[in-house]
Amino acid sequence: MLKKIDHIGIAVRHLADAAAVYGGAFGLEAGEIETIPGQKVRVQKFQIGGIRIEFLEPISDDSPVSKFLAKRGEGVHHLCYAVSDLDQAVRELKSHEMAFTGEPVIGSDGKPIIFIHPGSANGVLIELVEERQAEQNS
Amino acid sequence: MLKKIDHIGIAVRHLADAAAVYGGAFGLEAGEIETIPGQKVRVQKFQIGGIRIEFLEPISDDSPVSKFLAKRGEGVHHLCYAVSDLDQAVRELKSHEMAFTGEPVIGSDGKPIIFIHPGSANGVLIELVEERQAEQNS
Repeated sequence: MLKKIDHIGIAVRHLADAAAVYGGAFGLEAGEIETIPGQKVRVQKFQIGGIRIEFLEPISDDSPVSKFLAKRGEGVHHLCYAVSDLDQAVRELKSHEMAFTGEPVIGSDGKPIIFIHPGSANGVLIELVEERQAEQNS
Repeated sequence: MLKKIDHIGIAVRHLADAAAVYGGAFGLEAGEIETIPGQKVRVQKFQIGGIRIEFLEPISDDSPVSKFLAKRGEGVHHLCYAVSDLDQAVRELKSHEMAFTGEPVIGSDGKPIIFIHPGSANGVLIELVEERQAEQNS
């Protein structure tokens, strides 16, 4: 069901602090800063061996990331795994009584995504993103 | 400096709960359960697209993972990145004023490792492991 790790999301108060570590000390190339209004975050991405690290900075107090920071402080916010068929994955996982935080939606890059509730996955918020083979070849 | 993500460590109270999710619902092959006396944990590994997910269950109340669970609950405990030369990486990172939790040690699989203090890396405990090219080819 899980093809690969798509990205790791890390919640930070200030993207500049992440850039100092991953761009400065680690010497990685920093992606452009993007704003995702639906999640009320600004995002900056880095690549490590083909896996994205996405830093998330809240842009309002009612952002889900603000709530995470208030409760747990900075740290890993979610893991994202790629699946071939999101609807099928959701059906299979529901048959194992796993809970989701909502229904599938279209993510910022146009791909369907869903979040598994941390209570169903060892305390870790897990995002699933659909990566169809045909899209990979296009 | 960073070659790839080597593994993601997730702290759990019971490895059986992790196996139910990653072995059961996600259908991944579960590795053997290993005990690492030095860290006072039992570890079970799963592979997703060439990256290991390592679940850590404490075997005593004074395990570092017990302290993590008491403070933050179950969730991502650390990220491990592979580097070619650990000593060189440590020198470079110290020149950027990054702090480590201790000196390099030999990890459970015989490779040198060190941990970057979460306070130096956006709230995330980061393990560095040395993966020399010669070892990869042997």
